[in-house]
Amino acid sequence: MSLDQPSDRPHDRLARLLAGEMDQVNHLIRDRMASEHAPRIPEVTAHLVEAGGKRLRPMLTLAAARMCGYSGVNHVKLAATVEFIHTATLLHDDVVDESAQRRGRATANLLWDNKSSVLVGDYLFARSFQIMVETDSLRVMDILADASATIAEGEVLQLTAAQNLATDEAIYLQVIRGKTAALFAAACEVGGVVAGASEEQVAALRDYGDALGISFQIVDDLLDYDGDAGATGKNVGDDFRERKLTLPVIKAVAQANDEERAFWQRVIEKGRQEEGDLDQALGLLHRHGAMEATRTDALMWAGRAKGALQAFPAGEIKDMLDDLADFVVARAH
Amino acid sequence: MSLDQPSDRPHDRLARLLAGEMDQVNHLIRDRMASEHAPRIPEVTAHLVEAGGKRLRPMLTLAAARMCGYSGVNHVKLAATVEFIHTATLLHDDVVDESAQRRGRATANLLWDNKSSVLVGDYLFARSFQIMVETDSLRVMDILADASATIAEGEVLQLTAAQNLATDEAIYLQVIRGKTAALFAAACEVGGVVAGASEEQVAALRDYGDALGISFQIVDDLLDYDGDAGATGKNVGDDFRERKLTLPVIKAVAQANDEERAFWQRVIEKGRQEEGDLDQALGLLHRHGAMEATRTDALMWAGRAKGALQAFPAGEIKDMLDDLADFVVARAH
Repeated sequence: MSLDQPSDRPHDRLARLLAGEMDQVNHLIRDRMASEHAPRIPEVTAHLVEAGGKRLRPMLTLAAARMCGYSGVNHVKLAATVEFIHTATLLHDDVVDESAQRRGRATANLLWDNKSSVLVGDYLFARSFQIMVETDSLRVMDILADASATIAEGEVLQLTAAQNLATDEAIYLQVIRGKTAALFAAACEVGGVVAGASEEQVAALRDYGDALGISFQIVDDLLDYDGDAGATGKNVGDDFRERKLTLPVIKAVAQANDEERAFWQRVIEKGRQEEGDLDQALGLLHRHGAMEATRTDALMWAGRAKGALQAFPAGEIKDMLDDLADFVVARAH
Repeated sequence: MSLDQPSDRPHDRLARLLAGEMDQVNHLIRDRMASEHAPRIPEVTAHLVEAGGKRLRPMLTLAAARMCGYSGVNHVKLAATVEFIHTATLLHDDVVDESAQRRGRATANLLWDNKSSVLVGDYLFARSFQIMVETDSLRVMDILADASATIAEGEVLQLTAAQNLATDEAIYLQVIRGKTAALFAAACEVGGVVAGASEEQVAALRDYGDALGISFQIVDDLLDYDGDAGATGKNVGDDFRERKLTLPVIKAVAQANDEERAFWQRVIEKGRQEEGDLDQALGLLHRHGAMEATRTDALMWAGRAKGALQAFPAGEIKDMLDDLADFVVARAH
């Protein structure tokens, strides 16, 4: 497997192939995050935007448009729109999660304050909306408005579901479909729409993004219990400490005996965590095969993503998107 | 003056005239604040929406559309859009200001938590965007996207300007144009656009809303130092205690001698407030005629609002909008 070589990772290959358009996207982002009157806005935004995220979502928009033969310029605007929506949700997420680190740097809510994160997030969301209006496509606006509502709904659902042991796999799926997959799906779909692709292909792009996003989030949640902090930038057990009920724990809870159930109630629902609890949780996850079962689910969703791509003829971008689905799961050993 | 009789207030007369359409707006709001998956959303929204705000902004959209002879149904959607944007900003404002009361009730951030207020606000903003897409008007979306960005920009500017004695009247105007007048202006403007009014009338509606919103906010800031808590639902001195530099204080600071300047620096910039400081501040505001000068500014903006209405022929709604501009200032004795 050459997937471990940074330069051979599918998103690095996509980034090279789309470098010219990504430059335009980055230029548009820098241009539109400016504010004549409130310098705090570009300060906060630049801190996050220039920390160097993978720009996965805007890349999906560009790739989808190009795979559908698009030769115009509106896909650059849509890619910037998608990244602005993503950045706005990150700013608000960090306030909601009371996070101190993001992309290896102190979060904006820590460096400035929660107020700035809330209001600059609102500004970026409004900006995203302005840019998409420039594309003159009501259908694109419809898709992105729906995605924005679904994202917020998923986040609110997570608030009430995360610390409740009654949360099952169906509710978990609904949460991650909202908070993660909705924007992946919309990013892909608008790329097809702007290119004038067939309805079948537009639907396939949406399915690809949805399944890729679900797989991506399941692996993220898995790595939280099984990751290498150096490689992922995450610390093992963050979700556990924050009492976030994610798929591995949901699977272990479903098979828990009375004593184990009492443990999960104490650490997740009541939040009374003690020294050694994380190890105990990891032990339970392994005993019930919850890690392996979670990885199997992620593989299944990656397979669905690849299946959706069959609506497209063979080609370089299709291959890369196919590899990307493999790579998302390969992150989990 | 019969303006003191509740039923004769201009917005009550407008409300009676537009009762049928306002019922439709309220119905649409209740319908769209629902969420199949996240019951927290309608709980939080209902708490705020049903506390009985004046619905001034959606009423402006309905009134503008009707004054321009509109007979369709899209103005109801736009009015609901405007109220959703307003509600979303209130939820976020209460987080930013750490408020405990709004419309005489405990705020959502207090009853639930900041997280719910941030995320439900995001949801309502996305919902507003979905409803406006249904009107199929790119121009309307353009106006409301710009207004949303201007609102957030004004709020961020206020963060950095509010506790800084260098903030002058020009910056204050920019802040309140953003945080308050932008939505008043857009609410009026889209009413004209949806009715297919002439460019001259659309511009006049925008000017009316802008000037009315500025006048409204100046009076609000004045009442904070001069109000009757029973009548306004506000406590005298809230802005002072929150160290918010508003127009009355800006005017007093501009005329302050060295000793007075040191006082303002201590209480506003450094936030070291002591017993008796509010009385001292009120004394300085009166000594320099700052209250009266602020009221004169509000009157001037109300006059501008009325002037803009001259683009319209005489009629019942025009009269009410005219009275509304008077009433906004009449609140300040």
